[in-house]
Amino acid sequence: MSLATIFLSETVGTAMLILLGAGSVANTALPRTKGNGTGFLFVNWGWGLAVFSGVLVSYKSGAHLNPAVTLGIVFSGTKEFVPGVAVSAASIATYIAAQFVGAFIGAVACWLAYKKQFDADAPGAVKLGVFSTAPEVRSPLWNLVTEAIGTFVLVFVVLGAGHWGDSATHTPGGLGWLGALGVALLVVAIGISLGGPTGYAINPARDLGPRIAFAVLPIPGKTGADWGYSWVPVVGPLIGGVVAGLASGVLLPA
Amino acid sequence: MSLATIFLSETVGTAMLILLGAGSVANTALPRTKGNGTGFLFVNWGWGLAVFSGVLVSYKSGAHLNPAVTLGIVFSGTKEFVPGVAVSAASIATYIAAQFVGAFIGAVACWLAYKKQFDADAPGAVKLGVFSTAPEVRSPLWNLVTEAIGTFVLVFVVLGAGHWGDSATHTPGGLGWLGALGVALLVVAIGISLGGPTGYAINPARDLGPRIAFAVLPIPGKTGADWGYSWVPVVGPLIGGVVAGLASGVLLPA
Amino acid sequence: MSLATIFLSETVGTAMLILLGAGSVANTALPRTKGNGTGFLFVNWGWGLAVFSGVLVSYKSGAHLNPAVTLGIVFSGTKEFVPGVAVSAASIATYIAAQFVGAFIGAVACWLAYKKQFDADAPGAVKLGVFSTAPEVRSPLWNLVTEAIGTFVLVFVVLGAGHWGDSATHTPGGLGWLGALGVALLVVAIGISLGGPTGYAINPARDLGPRIAFAVLPIPGKTGADWGYSWVPVVGPLIGGVVAGLASGVLLPA
Amino acid sequence: MSLATIFLSETVGTAMLILLGAGSVANTALPRTKGNGTGFLFVNWGWGLAVFSGVLVSYKSGAHLNPAVTLGIVFSGTKEFVPGVAVSAASIATYIAAQFVGAFIGAVACWLAYKKQFDADAPGAVKLGVFSTAPEVRSPLWNLVTEAIGTFVLVFVVLGAGHWGDSATHTPGGLGWLGALGVALLVVAIGISLGGPTGYAINPARDLGPRIAFAVLPIPGKTGADWGYSWVPVVGPLIGGVVAGLASGVLLPA
Repeated sequence: MSLATIFLSETVGTAMLILLGAGSVANTALPRTKGNGTGFLFVNWGWGLAVFSGVLVSYKSGAHLNPAVTLGIVFSGTKEFVPGVAVSAASIATYIAAQFVGAFIGAVACWLAYKKQFDADAPGAVKLGVFSTAPEVRSPLWNLVTEAIGTFVLVFVVLGAGHWGDSATHTPGGLGWLGALGVALLVVAIGISLGGPTGYAINPARDLGPRIAFAVLPIPGKTGADWGYSWVPVVGPLIGGVVAGLASGVLLPA
Repeated sequence: MSLATIFLSETVGTAMLILLGAGSVANTALPRTKGNGTGFLFVNWGWGLAVFSGVLVSYKSGAHLNPAVTLGIVFSGTKEFVPGVAVSAASIATYIAAQFVGAFIGAVACWLAYKKQFDADAPGAVKLGVFSTAPEVRSPLWNLVTEAIGTFVLVFVVLGAGHWGDSATHTPGGLGWLGALGVALLVVAIGISLGGPTGYAINPARDLGPRIAFAVLPIPGKTGADWGYSWVPVVGPLIGGVVAGLASGVLLPA
Repeated sequence: MSLATIFLSETVGTAMLILLGAGSVANTALPRTKGNGTGFLFVNWGWGLAVFSGVLVSYKSGAHLNPAVTLGIVFSGTKEFVPGVAVSAASIATYIAAQFVGAFIGAVACWLAYKKQFDADAPGAVKLGVFSTAPEVRSPLWNLVTEAIGTFVLVFVVLGAGHWGDSATHTPGGLGWLGALGVALLVVAIGISLGGPTGYAINPARDLGPRIAFAVLPIPGKTGADWGYSWVPVVGPLIGGVVAGLASGVLLPA
Repeated sequence: MSLATIFLSETVGTAMLILLGAGSVANTALPRTKGNGTGFLFVNWGWGLAVFSGVLVSYKSGAHLNPAVTLGIVFSGTKEFVPGVAVSAASIATYIAAQFVGAFIGAVACWLAYKKQFDADAPGAVKLGVFSTAPEVRSPLWNLVTEAIGTFVLVFVVLGAGHWGDSATHTPGGLGWLGALGVALLVVAIGISLGGPTGYAINPARDLGPRIAFAVLPIPGKTGADWGYSWVPVVGPLIGGVVAGLASGVLLPA
C-alpha cells in the first residue's frame, strides 16, 4: 500500500472525527441549537461516536487518527503499521501530517454546519471551546499530567486489546481487538472519567488542528486562540502515548 | 426478488423508523408524558434506536429507509441493490415510494399512540415538531448546508463501512459492514454532532411523509405545516447523499 | 427438555428482569437514593439492561420473560419453543405461570434492596409506581392502544430479527437474531419512543406480578394497588403480541 | 501460566477499573471540573465502561478484578481459573491480593489526574466519596442486604452467561459468554437499578483499596475515612458472590 493511500485514509478519518466531535461541543455550547445546555455526558457520547464514525472510513491505514496512537504503536515495537507499510520516519510523518490536515478540514466543516450559530452572539471563549480544549484550573504541570494519564489509558487499552486474539473484531490495521465500537466506548470512558480537569484532548491533532482553524476562520467576536496553553494538549498526549507504548512490553505480556 | 417484496420491506422498515423516532420527540416535547422535558440526548438515542428497529424488519431490501441512502448507493456505482434487484428507474422509484408511504404510516401510528397527548393543550409548533424538523435559525442556504453535511456523513460512513470485509456484520442488502447496530450508532452520532441547527432530517421521507400526515390528521390546535421550509429537508439530504455516493469512488478506495 | 426446566429458566429470568427494572424506577423515584430525580432516560436504560441481564440467565427456555412474547411466538406459527419443547397448552401455561412467579419474586427482591427507601416518607402513588405502571392521562381505550402498539413493536421486531440468518447472534430458543443485547436495545427504543403515555408495561407479567407483590408487602403509607387500571397493561400487551404474531406471516416474508 | 502473571494481570486490570471508575465520580462530584453535577447516569456509564477498559487489559487472568467474582467462581465449582491455573488457596490469594494492590494504585492515579480538584475547597465527605461508597440511609443490616443483592446479580449473571456457548464472546479466562462489553453493560444495569441505597460497591477491593488510599494521600480538608462503615462493602459483596456461586449449581443448569 502506498503512503498516499495512508495519507488519504488518515485525513478522511480524522476529518470525520473532528467534524462530529467538535460538532457535539457546538451543539451543547453554542446558542440557538437544539442541544444547547445538554451537558457533558452528551459531549462524551458525541466524541466517542465521532471516533466510531472516523474509524469506519479509515480502514486502509488502521485508523490511528491521533499522533499519540501512532507513536504509541511505534514504541510498542510494532514493525508494520498495516501489511506492507513498515514503520519508518516517512510513514510516521505521513500518518501525523494527515492527522493534522484532516483535523483542520473537519474543523472547517463543523464551522460550516454551525455557521449561523457561530455568527450569533456568544463569548469568544465559548466559540474557541468548540475547537480546542481549555483547563478548568490552569496549571501547566498538572494539566500535562491529566492529559498524559488520559492518553496513556487510550493507547494502553488499545494495545492490550490486541492480545485478545478474537479475529472477528480486529481492525485491518495495527489496533488489534478493538474495532470501531470498542475504541468508541473507550473514548467515552476516558471522557467521563478523566475529561474533568482539561476537557480530554488526548490527541495533539484533535486540539492543535482545530485551534489553527479557529485562528484563521472569519468568526465574529473571536478571542485569541490561547496559544499559551496550546502546547499542553500536544505534549501531554505524546508523553502518555509513548509511555503506554513502552509500558506495554512489560505490563501486557503475550 | 420482486419489486413488490422490496416495496413491502421498505414500507415496513420506514414505518417502524418513524413510529419510534417521532414517538421519541413526542415523549419529550408533548405535555402529560413520562418523558416530558428529558431533552436532546434522549431524542438522539430515540432516533438511533428507531433506525435499529427499522433496519431489523427491513432485511429483504437492505434497509435503506431513506431516499438519500438509495441515491447515495446508486451514485456510488452499485449495480444491484440486493442480489437479483438491479439498479434501475423502476427499482429506485420502488424504494423511494415505499419510504414515503412507510413514513406516512409510521406518523399516523405515532399519533395514535400519543392521541391523548396530541389532544392536550400545546403550541401548534410543538405538535408539528413531533412530525417534522424546523431550524433554530431560519436561513434556507445554511440550513441546506447543514442538512447536506449531515446526510453526507450518514451515506459516506455507510459506504465506507462496506469496505471492512467483516462478513458477520454485513446486512443482506447493499449497506455493507454496518448492521442494524452500526447504523443506529451512526445516527446517534449525527444527531448529537450535527443535529443542533436544523434537527437533522437527513432523510427526505422522514421529514416530508410525516409533514403530510400532520396536514391531514385531525389534531386540535394545529398550525400550518410550514410548507415554506419543507423543501430544505428534502433537497439538502438529496444533495448530501448524491455527493457522498460520488465522493466514495475517490475517497473510499477498495 | 422438561417443562420443569422451562419453568425454572423463565422464573429466574423474569425475576432478574423485574428486580433490575423496578429497581431502576425505585432509584429515580424514591427519596434518599443516589439516583433520585435522574429521569426517564435513566429508567429506559435501566429496563433495557434489565432485559439484557434477564435474558442472559434464561438461556434454557429462549428467554421470553413475557406472556405477550410467548403468545406472539405461538401466533407466528412456531411449532417448538426450543428444541424438544412443542407448542401446546401445557408448555404455554408453563411459560406464562413461570413469568408471573418470577415477576413476583423479582418485585420482592427489589423491595428488600430498597427497604429503607420504601420505609421513608413518600406518596403512596410513587411507591406503587416502582412496581406497576400508571397512565399520564387516564383513558382506558387509548391507554390500551398505546400498550398494544408498544408490544406490537416488541414482538414484531423480535420476530423480524429472526430472519437475518446470522447464527452467531441467535439465542438458543425461539427469539432468532436478537441476542440479549439486541432485545435490550429494542426495549430501550420502545421506552424512549412509546413509553410516554402509559409507562410501557408491554408485558402482563411485568405489571401484574409486581402489583400483587405491592398489595401484599408491608410497605408503610401504601395506597391501593389501582386494580381499576390493572387490566389495561395485561390486555393491551396481549393484543399487541397476538397481532404481531399474526402480522408476521404477511409482513415478514422468509 | 505462573501466579506472577496472574498477579500482574489482575493488578493492571483493577488499577484501570478504579482509575476510570473513581475518575467518573470525581468528574461529577468535585468542583471545577467539566462534568460537575452531571449526575448518576453519568456515573453509571463511567463505572460500566471502566470495567470494559479494565477487562480489556486483564486478558491473562480472566479479568475478575473483584474478590467477590473470584470467590463466586470458586463456589460455582470451577476447577481452573484459566487453563493451567488450578483453584487453590495460593491462586485465590494471588487474585485477591492483586485486586487490592491494583485498586490502591488506581486510586492514586485518579488523585493525580484530579490533583487540582482535590486541592480545591470541597466537603471532606465529597472527597471521600470519590474513593469509597457511603449509604444514603445508614443501616448496616439493610446496606449489607443491598450490597449482597447487587453482587449476587453481578456474579450470577456472569456465571449464567457462561452457558450460552457462543465461543466468539468467551473471555480467555473463567467468565464465559460475557466479554468486556457484556460485563460493562451488566455493571451499568446494576448501578442504575441497585445503586440507589449504597452506591454499589459490589466489590470489596473497589471500596477498601481506595479507602486506604484516601487515608494515606495528602488531600487538603480530609475527613476520616469512615472506617465504621468500611466492613459493609466488603462483607456484603462477599456474601453475594458466594451465594451466587452456590446458587448457580441449582438455578443455572447446564
